[in-house]
Amino acid sequence: MINLNVKYLEKNINTKKVFEDYKGNVSKYSNLIDEKKIKGAEMLGWLDYPKEISKDLIQEIEGYAKKFRSKNIKNILVISIGGSYTALRAAVDMCIPPYNRDVNIYYVPGISSNYIYSLKQKLEKEDFSIIVISKSGGTIEPAISLRIFYELLIKKYGVEESKNRVVAITSETKGSLIKIAKKYNWKTFFIPEDIGGRFSALCPVGLVPMAMLGLDIKNIIKGALKARKDTSNKTIEKNTAYQYAVLRHYFYSKLRKKIEVFGSYDEENFYFIEHLKQLFGESEGKNHKGLFPTIARYTTDLHSIGQFLQDGSPIFFETLLIVKNANKDLKFKKLFDDLDNLDYVIQKTVGEINNIACKSTMEAHLLDGGSSTIQIVVEKIDEETFGYLYYWFSKSVTMSALLLNQNPFDQPGVEAYKKRMIDNIKKK
Amino acid sequence: MINLNVKYLEKNINTKKVFEDYKGNVSKYSNLIDEKKIKGAEMLGWLDYPKEISKDLIQEIEGYAKKFRSKNIKNILVISIGGSYTALRAAVDMCIPPYNRDVNIYYVPGISSNYIYSLKQKLEKEDFSIIVISKSGGTIEPAISLRIFYELLIKKYGVEESKNRVVAITSETKGSLIKIAKKYNWKTFFIPEDIGGRFSALCPVGLVPMAMLGLDIKNIIKGALKARKDTSNKTIEKNTAYQYAVLRHYFYSKLRKKIEVFGSYDEENFYFIEHLKQLFGESEGKNHKGLFPTIARYTTDLHSIGQFLQDGSPIFFETLLIVKNANKDLKFKKLFDDLDNLDYVIQKTVGEINNIACKSTMEAHLLDGGSSTIQIVVEKIDEETFGYLYYWFSKSVTMSALLLNQNPFDQPGVEAYKKRMIDNIKKK
Repeated sequence: MINLNVKYLEKNINTKKVFEDYKGNVSKYSNLIDEKKIKGAEMLGWLDYPKEISKDLIQEIEGYAKKFRSKNIKNILVISIGGSYTALRAAVDMCIPPYNRDVNIYYVPGISSNYIYSLKQKLEKEDFSIIVISKSGGTIEPAISLRIFYELLIKKYGVEESKNRVVAITSETKGSLIKIAKKYNWKTFFIPEDIGGRFSALCPVGLVPMAMLGLDIKNIIKGALKARKDTSNKTIEKNTAYQYAVLRHYFYSKLRKKIEVFGSYDEENFYFIEHLKQLFGESEGKNHKGLFPTIARYTTDLHSIGQFLQDGSPIFFETLLIVKNANKDLKFKKLFDDLDNLDYVIQKTVGEINNIACKSTMEAHLLDGGSSTIQIVVEKIDEETFGYLYYWFSKSVTMSALLLNQNPFDQPGVEAYKKRMIDNIKKK
Repeated sequence: MINLNVKYLEKNINTKKVFEDYKGNVSKYSNLIDEKKIKGAEMLGWLDYPKEISKDLIQEIEGYAKKFRSKNIKNILVISIGGSYTALRAAVDMCIPPYNRDVNIYYVPGISSNYIYSLKQKLEKEDFSIIVISKSGGTIEPAISLRIFYELLIKKYGVEESKNRVVAITSETKGSLIKIAKKYNWKTFFIPEDIGGRFSALCPVGLVPMAMLGLDIKNIIKGALKARKDTSNKTIEKNTAYQYAVLRHYFYSKLRKKIEVFGSYDEENFYFIEHLKQLFGESEGKNHKGLFPTIARYTTDLHSIGQFLQDGSPIFFETLLIVKNANKDLKFKKLFDDLDNLDYVIQKTVGEINNIACKSTMEAHLLDGGSSTIQIVVEKIDEETFGYLYYWFSKSVTMSALLLNQNPFDQPGVEAYKKRMIDNIKKK
C-alpha cells in the first residue's frame, strides 16, 4: 500500500549501495525484533497486537460505540495527551472531513487556563460526554482536566447519569484512574501493559474513541495487518519500512543532517505528521543523539519556512506523506473575465494543482536548493491506510532507533521535567 | 512592556560581555535603520507607520467594521496566506477566547482539496462574508480560493448583494485583485507598497479584519507606538529588541546552534509563535545561513519533542513567550476522595500550575539537559500587548538579519518554487 519514492534525493546518493551497506545490520536487528531480544523488548506488545486482538474485544468496542452513537450526544471531550492524543486526532482528521462531522470533538492538550476556561463555558451550555485516556492516571495534564470537566459533568447531570457519560481507557491493574473508574462505576477499556503511548493507536487507546466517533475500526485493523505482513520481510530490498529507517540513518550519520522535516500538502494529514514528530522525537532523541523532528504544513508553510528550506542552512531533509488521489476534488469555472490571469488553471482540478505545487517544490528544493525529499506515497486516505501507515511507521522507527543504538520505547528525558514539576507544585 | 529574562541561559554565557562585544555593530546598524540606509530599505514602510497612520483611515476602518458587525453575519471567510494569515490569526487568538466569539472565522491556508470541499459544503448552508487579502492578487492559493468561494457567494446571494459581502485588501495600483475589486465594486482597503507581508499586521492588512472581528485596533496601535519608542533607543543596554537580536546571533555564530524553538505554554499564543517562525525564517533563512525556526506548543509538545529537547542532540536553544497572568483562571475542588493523589494541587490555580510547568521545564532543560531558554515576558495578553510584541519583533528581526548580513525584507527562495509551480501548471 506504500510506495517509497526516492526520486528526489541528492544525485550523489546511491540508494542501492546504501541498502547493501546496511544489509547486515538490518538483518541482525530484524531477527532480534522478531525474537523480542532488542532493547526495550518488554514494550513490543504492539508488534503482534493486530493479529492477536480478540473478536470479542472488537465486538465489545463496536457495540459500546454503537450504543453511544445512538444517544446522539453532540459533543465529546477527549482528555488525553502525548501519543494517544496525536494519533487519535490523526485518524479522525484523516477519515472524517472537518465540516462533515456528526459529533463535535474537543481536546484539552495542556493546562492553558484561558483555553480551559473558555472550553468550560462552552460545554456548560452543551450536551457532552467524556473520554479519558491515561495509562496510570498520574500524568498531570489529563488528571487536571478530568477534575475540572468531571466536576462540570456532575454539576450538569448528577453522579448517577454521569456514569453513562464517561469512558476511561486505562491500565487494568495499576495507577489511580482505574481506582476512580471503579469507584464511580464508569465504563472502562484496558491498555495492554506492554504497549507504550506512541504505539497504542491500534489497541483500545485508539480503537475505542475512533469507533465512538464513527470510524470503521475493522478496516483500521485490516490495514495494520497488511503492514504487519509487508514489514515482516527481513530482506531490506523487500521491506520499505526498513529502507526508510536506513535512509534516515544515512542522512543523519553520513550526511550529517540535523533535522527531518515531516510534511504533507493535505490538511487532513497534519496530525499524522504531528504523530511522526512525536514518534521519532521520543524514540530517538536521547543520549544526545537523533534527528530533530519538525513538521511542515503545506502549502501554508511554503510561505513560512519555505524560504529557509529553499535557501537557508542545508542541515535538513524532508519526508513527505503524499496522497495520489484526494477523496474530494473541485473544478473551476471561468470567472472575473480572467482579470486574475487564472483561466490557465481551469483545465486542472484543485487536487491536481495541489499535486503540482508539491512536485514543483520538491524540484526547486532539489535542483535549486540541493536538498533531498523522501516520499511516502499512498493511493488514498481512509481507515485502512491509517492502520497501514501507523503500523508501518511503528516498525520503521523501531529499526531506526536500533540503528542509533537506542531503546525505541523509553523516554527518560520526559521523566526529568515531570519530577521537577511535581516537586515544584508541592512547594508552598 | 517586555522583560527579556536571561536567567535560564547556560552558565558560561556572560550577557553583559556579549552585549559589550556587539555594541559597535548594533550602534552602526541602528543608525542605518533610522537613516533608512540598510539593505532592503525600500521596504521599511512599517517602521514609522504606527505614528503616520491617519486618524481618517482609522476612523474609516472602524466605521466599516461597525457597519459590518451590525449586520450580524455569523461567518467570515478569510482568504490569505503567509504573513497576513499568521499574524491575523495570532491577534484574534490572543484577544478573543476560542469559544467566546460572536463570529465564526474560517481560513483557507492552502489548496488542500478535501479541506476546501468540506468548507464549501459548510458555507453553502451558512450566512457568510469574504475578506480577501493579497497585495498582487497573483499568489496562487488566495487566487484559487477566491474563485471557488466567490462563485459560491454569487450563487447564494447574486452579484449585486455580494458587493456588500466582500472586502479586498490589496495594492492600490498594482496587480489583478484591485482590477477585480473595481470591476465588481467591492469595498477596498490599500496596502502600502513599502510594507511586506510579514511586517503588515499594523497596517490595513491586519487592522481591517481585526476590527471586523471585534478587536480594539486603537489599542493595537497604542502598543505598537510604545514599542516604537522603546526600540528606538540606540544603546544596546536599553533596547531589549536589539539585545534579543544579539543573543540569537551569538547562539548561532559562536555557540553553533542550528535551531531556535519558539515556544509558549498558552494556547492563545500559538499563532503568534507561528508568526515568529515565519518572520525569522523568511527574514534570515537565505544564502545558506540562518537558524532553523520551529515551534513548541506546550505543554502538549513536552510529550512530543520534550524528550529530544531534554536529552537529544544539543543543537538548539529556546525562546519562550511567557505571560505572567492569565486573563482567566480556574480553581480546583476536592474530588475523587483524592484517589488521583491530586489534592496537593488544590491550593494552586490552573494558571499557577501552568507557570510551574514552564519553570520546571526550563530548569530541567538547563540543569539536566544543558540547554538555554530566552524568556520574553509580558504581564498579560490583550490588544496593546499584541501591538507591542508585533512591532518589537519586527524591529528585532531587522537587527538580527543585518547582523547576519542579510536583507531582512526579501524572500528570493520563495520565488524559485513559485516560478516552477506556474510553469508546471501551464504544462499540458
